[in-house]
Amino acid sequence: MRIALDAMGGDYAPAVTVEGAIEAVSESKDLSVILVGNEADLINELKGKDYPASLISIKHASQVVEMGESPVTALRRKKDSSIKVAVELVKAGEADAMVSAGNSGMVMAAALFILGKLQGVERPAIAAVMPTLKGLFVLIDAGANVDCKASHLLQFAIMGNAYARTIFNIDIPKIGLLGIGEEDAKGNELTKEAFKLLKESNINFIGNVEGKDVFTGNADVVVCDGFVGNIALKISEGLAEAIAKMLKREISEKTTGRISYLFLKGALKNFKKKTDYSEYGGAPLLGISMPCIISHGRSTAKAIKNAVQLAGEFCKKRVVDIISREFSAETSGSATRGEGRVVIKK
Amino acid sequence: MRIALDAMGGDYAPAVTVEGAIEAVSESKDLSVILVGNEADLINELKGKDYPASLISIKHASQVVEMGESPVTALRRKKDSSIKVAVELVKAGEADAMVSAGNSGMVMAAALFILGKLQGVERPAIAAVMPTLKGLFVLIDAGANVDCKASHLLQFAIMGNAYARTIFNIDIPKIGLLGIGEEDAKGNELTKEAFKLLKESNINFIGNVEGKDVFTGNADVVVCDGFVGNIALKISEGLAEAIAKMLKREISEKTTGRISYLFLKGALKNFKKKTDYSEYGGAPLLGISMPCIISHGRSTAKAIKNAVQLAGEFCKKRVVDIISREFSAETSGSATRGEGRVVIKK
Repeated sequence: MRIALDAMGGDYAPAVTVEGAIEAVSESKDLSVILVGNEADLINELKGKDYPASLISIKHASQVVEMGESPVTALRRKKDSSIKVAVELVKAGEADAMVSAGNSGMVMAAALFILGKLQGVERPAIAAVMPTLKGLFVLIDAGANVDCKASHLLQFAIMGNAYARTIFNIDIPKIGLLGIGEEDAKGNELTKEAFKLLKESNINFIGNVEGKDVFTGNADVVVCDGFVGNIALKISEGLAEAIAKMLKREISEKTTGRISYLFLKGALKNFKKKTDYSEYGGAPLLGISMPCIISHGRSTAKAIKNAVQLAGEFCKKRVVDIISREFSAETSGSATRGEGRVVIKK
Repeated sequence: MRIALDAMGGDYAPAVTVEGAIEAVSESKDLSVILVGNEADLINELKGKDYPASLISIKHASQVVEMGESPVTALRRKKDSSIKVAVELVKAGEADAMVSAGNSGMVMAAALFILGKLQGVERPAIAAVMPTLKGLFVLIDAGANVDCKASHLLQFAIMGNAYARTIFNIDIPKIGLLGIGEEDAKGNELTKEAFKLLKESNINFIGNVEGKDVFTGNADVVVCDGFVGNIALKISEGLAEAIAKMLKREISEKTTGRISYLFLKGALKNFKKKTDYSEYGGAPLLGISMPCIISHGRSTAKAIKNAVQLAGEFCKKRVVDIISREFSAETSGSATRGEGRVVIKK
C-alpha cells in the first residue's frame, strides 16, 4: 500500500512526519510512503537517517496551508499545497490513501472536491476513536458537519458501523445516539428524528447514550452531529490534560514528590497511553471515494506512524468498498428507502 | 433565609437530604430548612439526631415524582408531590428558595408553571459549575433548553454574567461561547448568529471557546444551548470517573498497591474534591422569579448541605433581583452599563 503523507502538516512537521513515515515503513513492510512537501526540506530531514530507501519517496509541493487558513480560499489559491498534491496523488492512482495532520478543513475540502463522495453518501464524516474502560469507541461525526439533518446521522451510523466492524473487528457493533437521556423521547429535534430513523434501520441500534455513559464502553459507535462531536472530543481531551496537570500538582504539593512519583510513574504512563490520541493515529474521513486519514495537529512521530498504518489497514480491509456497498444496497433495491431514510439489510 | 428542601428527591433520599439539611442549619445560623415530603418518613429520619429544632420543620407531601417520570404528566397528576409542594411554599411566601435533587425536568416544569419567568426572560436556563486549573467556570445552559435560538444564548450569557459576578465575586466575568474553533466565523448556524449578538452586547465577550480550552479557566462563563451543555457536563463527569477508575486499576496492577495508595491518597482526595460536583452543591435555574436550585440525583449529604447554602447565598445576594434588573434595563432601551449591568445595544 502506497500512502501519500502530507509531510508539511501538523505542529511539528516536517521533523515528526518524516520520522513517523520511517517508523511506519520499518515496522510494516507492505507499506510505502510518499512524503509530500518541500523537496529540499524533506531531503534535509531524511539526511543521515537510516531507513528502507525503496519504501520512502518524495513528491514536491511548494506550498503549505496554514492551520487558520480558510479551506475554500486555500483550495482555490494554493494550487500546489502539500495537502492538495497528496490528495491528487490518490486521485491519479499513484497512492492508495492519504494522511494529513494539517488543516483538517482543507483536507475535507480537497477530499470532497478532488476525490468526491461515494454514491449515496450525503455528507462524509470524521470517525474519531476514544478510550473507554473496556477498550474504545468510535465517535462519528467528530467535526466534519456542523449542521446536520437526521438522515445524515443515520448515514454516519451506517459508516461508523462498517468502520467498527472492519477495522476493530467487532462482529455486530452496538450503535448509540449521543443524547441527554436514555429514554427514547429525550433529545433535541435532530436527535429525536434521528432516533426514529435509527430504530427503523437494520443496524444494531442500542438507543440514546448519555455523555456520562460513553466511557463505560457499552456502545461501540456513538453517533452525533459534527458540532456536538467536536465539542465532546475536545472537552474530553481538555479534561484529560487538566486532570493530569491537577494530579501532578497535587502530588508535588502534598507528598514527598520524588518517592510518590516513582510509585505513580508506571500507572500514569499506562493511563496516558490509554487516553492518548497518538495511540489511535488518526481519524478517517468516511464517505469519500478513497481513504483519507486526518491526524491531530499536535501529532508526534508515533501518531503519524499509527496514522500511516491505519491508512494501510484501511486499504487492506477495503473499508471504502464496504461502505460503498452499504450505500449501493440502498439504491439497488435490495433495501428500501423512503423520505431520506436508509434501510440496509445485513 | 427559609429554604424549602425536596426531602424525597435524589437517589439516597430521604436519609441524605435530612442529614444535609441538619448540616446546613448547623453551619449557617441564618438558614432554616423546611423538609418537604412524607411526614412519617421524615420524623423517623430525624429521630435520635442532634439538630437545632427551631431551624428544621416538616411540610407533608404525600407523593414523589420518580426520576423517569414525565414532568408534564407528573405536574398534572401528582398534585401533592414533594417538588410541587416545595415550589408552592416559595410561591406562597413561606420559603425564600427551593432545592431539589429529584427529577430535574419536574423541578423546571413546576418552577415555570407555578413561579413563572422573570419579565423579559425567554427561557430559564441551568447554570452549572465546573472545575478548571485556576478555579471554576459557569456552564450555561446545562440542560434546560434542548433547542435554542441565538437570542436565547445571549440571554443565557446575561444571566450567567450576573450569577458569576454575584455568587463567585468576579468583577467583570469573561464570557465565552462554546464552539469548535477560536475564529469568529467558526461554528454552527446557531453559534455563528449568537456570536454576533454577543459581540454587539455590552458583556465582556471573549469570543469562541473550544472544548479543549474550557478547563484552562480563561472563561468564567461558557455559554451554549442546553443539549450541548448537558453533553459537555455529562461527558466531563463520565470521563473524570473513568479516569479515576483507570488510575486505580493501574495502581493496583502495576505497583505494590498498599504503599503507593498511601502516597497517592492525599493527592487523589484533593483531586476528587476539585472535580466533585458535590462541592458546588447545585445548579440554579436562572430566569425564574424565585430561587430554585437543582442538585445532582446522586447528591450526598454534603452536596445537599452545599445546595441549601447556595440557595441561602442566592437569596442574600439577591441574584433574582439583579437578573431582573438586567432584563428590565434591556426592555426599557437604556444603553448604559451602570454598575456592571449588561444592556443589549439595539
